Amino acid sequence: MRDEFRADLQIVSQLLVDMAEAIRAAMRQATRALLTADRQAAETVIERDAEIDDLYRHVEERVCNLLARQAPVASDLRAMITALHVAADLERMGDLADHVAKTALRRHPSPAVPAELRTVFTDMASIADRMAEKIGKVLAKPDADLAAELDRDDDTMDDLHKSLFAVLLGDDWPYGVETAIDATLLGRFYERFADHAVNAGEHVVYLITGEPAASAE
Amino acid sequence: MRDEFRADLQIVSQLLVDMAEAIRAAMRQATRALLTADRQAAETVIERDAEIDDLYRHVEERVCNLLARQAPVASDLRAMITALHVAADLERMGDLADHVAKTALRRHPSPAVPAELRTVFTDMASIADRMAEKIGKVLAKPDADLAAELDRDDDTMDDLHKSLFAVLLGDDWPYGVETAIDATLLGRFYERFADHAVNAGEHVVYLITGEPAASAE
Repeated sequence: MRDEFRADLQIVSQLLVDMAEAIRAAMRQATRALLTADRQAAETVIERDAEIDDLYRHVEERVCNLLARQAPVASDLRAMITALHVAADLERMGDLADHVAKTALRRHPSPAVPAELRTVFTDMASIADRMAEKIGKVLAKPDADLAAELDRDDDTMDDLHKSLFAVLLGDDWPYGVETAIDATLLGRFYERFADHAVNAGEHVVYLITGEPAASAE
Repeated sequence: MRDEFRADLQIVSQLLVDMAEAIRAAMRQATRALLTADRQAAETVIERDAEIDDLYRHVEERVCNLLARQAPVASDLRAMITALHVAADLERMGDLADHVAKTALRRHPSPAVPAELRTVFTDMASIADRMAEKIGKVLAKPDADLAAELDRDDDTMDDLHKSLFAVLLGDDWPYGVETAIDATLLGRFYERFADHAVNAGEHVVYLITGEPAASAE
């Protein structure tokens, strides 16, 4: 029974690692679509979001199956509930990559991000990518220190988000309202991506330490 | 055992109904704060968000406790997993009310919403309120038809959201980028509130019918 539980848990963990890799790839590609007006990259992200949703459903099915067959308690039960939370965060991160891709596509062949904002979006995307990478690592091999780094990464993301608004609200903003709306929504997508990475990290920390972390919001 | 499960399930259901009422009250008050620059209403919403978070934690604890003690299977297990999903959606709806209140507060004593946008935000808030009310009813007494109405309400919300952008992008938009940014974010908060209501409704429908609904996104 115990060995069987371990084997099932391993499968669930692997599905979560697969999800983390998929959402990382999705956000990288969505960023490329955004910054280089790459139509094909955008379409790939949108098409492949269904695969991330499928992985989410697989996690749910596995966990429910495992709860029904094995009736785990204590830390084993906590691991199952954690898997559900983390999968929900990762699924939502996939949606956010999809939103970035759709914004890029809506403006294609024009770039959705004007020259003045390329640096800040490049930096936000770079933090998002780093956070997605860390979530993947932490899920493959629980590491409370690495998970805790996500909080600091999120602070950097918040600073970048503020600097985005500073550009939009500067007296010399040369674009109109439409570009500002796009940039506002895009900024929010990257920022929420980071929030969900922090949430997922907190769930993993809780699993390792048994101590709930403060909520990211 | 069976009676005990029913009694526990009843407690979880009541917590979810309490959450639904709390998030409905929060969004009503946040809207008042927004449309009448009511500082105290905004502060109340922000303070009371912690109570919604507490309710969420209570649901999680109850469900985990129940899973550990009773090891439910089949539809009983499904009810537990559904409760976790619905609670997560409701908690997020509370966050979104909090975001609306914070936006109102940030602009206080100026109104965050200019005269040209009062109608669309009044209408969005009215749909949000109707959806929150329905979720509360559906949780108190499962009703697949009522839950299905949430989808139509969400279509109305999406139309309002589009009409908001039409005003922002009109040639005669008399305000600057800052007001457009606020309106963009506020529009997103109401629209996401509706999305989560739809998700919560779909989880309830799944519980009633055993058929997963298509995802809202």
